[in-house]
Amino acid sequence: MRPQMSRRKFILAASSVWSALNAGVRNCFAKTGAENSTPLPSRSPSQSESSGPTKPKVLVFDVNQTMLDLNALRPQFARVFGDGKLLDEWFSLLLHYSLVVTVADAYADFGTVGRAVLEMLASTKGVKLSSEDATKILQGVLIMPAHPDVPESLKRLRAAGFRMVTLTNSGPPAVKAQLQNAGLTQYFDESISVDSVRRFKPDLEVYRSAAVHLGAQPAELLLIAAHPWDVFGAMKAGWQAAFLARNGITPFPMGPKPTINCPDMKTFADAILK
Amino acid sequence: MRPQMSRRKFILAASSVWSALNAGVRNCFAKTGAENSTPLPSRSPSQSESSGPTKPKVLVFDVNQTMLDLNALRPQFARVFGDGKLLDEWFSLLLHYSLVVTVADAYADFGTVGRAVLEMLASTKGVKLSSEDATKILQGVLIMPAHPDVPESLKRLRAAGFRMVTLTNSGPPAVKAQLQNAGLTQYFDESISVDSVRRFKPDLEVYRSAAVHLGAQPAELLLIAAHPWDVFGAMKAGWQAAFLARNGITPFPMGPKPTINCPDMKTFADAILK
Repeated sequence: MRPQMSRRKFILAASSVWSALNAGVRNCFAKTGAENSTPLPSRSPSQSESSGPTKPKVLVFDVNQTMLDLNALRPQFARVFGDGKLLDEWFSLLLHYSLVVTVADAYADFGTVGRAVLEMLASTKGVKLSSEDATKILQGVLIMPAHPDVPESLKRLRAAGFRMVTLTNSGPPAVKAQLQNAGLTQYFDESISVDSVRRFKPDLEVYRSAAVHLGAQPAELLLIAAHPWDVFGAMKAGWQAAFLARNGITPFPMGPKPTINCPDMKTFADAILK
Repeated sequence: MRPQMSRRKFILAASSVWSALNAGVRNCFAKTGAENSTPLPSRSPSQSESSGPTKPKVLVFDVNQTMLDLNALRPQFARVFGDGKLLDEWFSLLLHYSLVVTVADAYADFGTVGRAVLEMLASTKGVKLSSEDATKILQGVLIMPAHPDVPESLKRLRAAGFRMVTLTNSGPPAVKAQLQNAGLTQYFDESISVDSVRRFKPDLEVYRSAAVHLGAQPAELLLIAAHPWDVFGAMKAGWQAAFLARNGITPFPMGPKPTINCPDMKTFADAILK
């Protein structure tokens, strides 16, 4: 499925990443040691690659929130619950209960868990949720638009020759629809879902299984995600990770510092491609 | 550690539970079949015990929210974050990230995870959180009062001869302090913590390990909890479970119906002891 890419082009692209990180990129922070994260100086001398991160073989993108804008669902929550903020409560519950079913050995796909927590939220709030409203909200997940900074950034990364895949908690038919509806399908070689291991991110088995599938060592993979827990899991599995600090969110303090910490996809692409 | 209890007294107590559930108790619902939950009729003929739940050997109580009132922390959140509602956001994050560290094989005790998500919440909200404020909030968890319906209910259950233990995500020193400060220590034979298995509820390993420790078959144990996910996990592990629907919360729709569904500890005790 992966388009042809010259070996030379890939190496050039990969080399440029780490010289860029060593040379410094505005708005981004790169980890230079095992546990330290420092702002990149605007003109520092190049550092030896052995002291920094290794070149990633594949860029692995999270989907929901990282690339697609969940806020598109807010009007539906405002209509059904009378308060758009319930969107945040629902998504938090979804993330929590996706792990509840994981640790209780009771996997069901993300959409099924999403509907269950939506029903639970409605009955807890004393809100009447019709089957049609639930379906409308869940179908809304499939047609979320990309964040404005995403398409152009993916295009630039792709043009630089990177092998690019998605790794999401969404089930396979869902992610296929999501990428198609957001106009992002053409940027990815393939989509990897948690569905095959029947455990949700950040269960380490998801990252391990993906690495085997991609034929790569963990350290050769770079996750790009706007979720502290996703970056935490990937790095615990030995991956590199870029944290997109959308809406001012910060990394999980118990984890190692992200390999790269950028405000959004554009600054991430700037850092990687400089 | 367990006080002497006559065998006869225990059998009497245990028998009264299930005749009560079969006879019907106001405000409570009991599961009568494998997957059905029906309101108990006010005067139904007794059912054969083989069609209903089996007698529990041990009552296993969750601690935070189920017995202790988390709302005691709200003034601290109002002071530090300028909004008492952040308490709910913090506790949701704590529950989520306790499972994040579980599936990422990175267990740390509940207090450590609680501090990490508190720091993350503060930096995401752009709130300056001093070390003293963080410590004050986390120490507040150790001195939460019991819900008003709890002490008398535990006293009645204890007087009826039940073997009673706690099973909590809090670490061993924390739960010891919590029960002592809330004046509940004397009602329990012992406290079981997730600390020995280094995975948080509702990981099935927690319930399995507790059953082995208690020398009981899963179906002989009854969890009492005000958390949908806790009831879900216990029942997936083969336990019985009483769901306390505090603040109008409802069970997780993907799980089997709780063995008993009551609004609070008093109505639970009424049902068990009728």
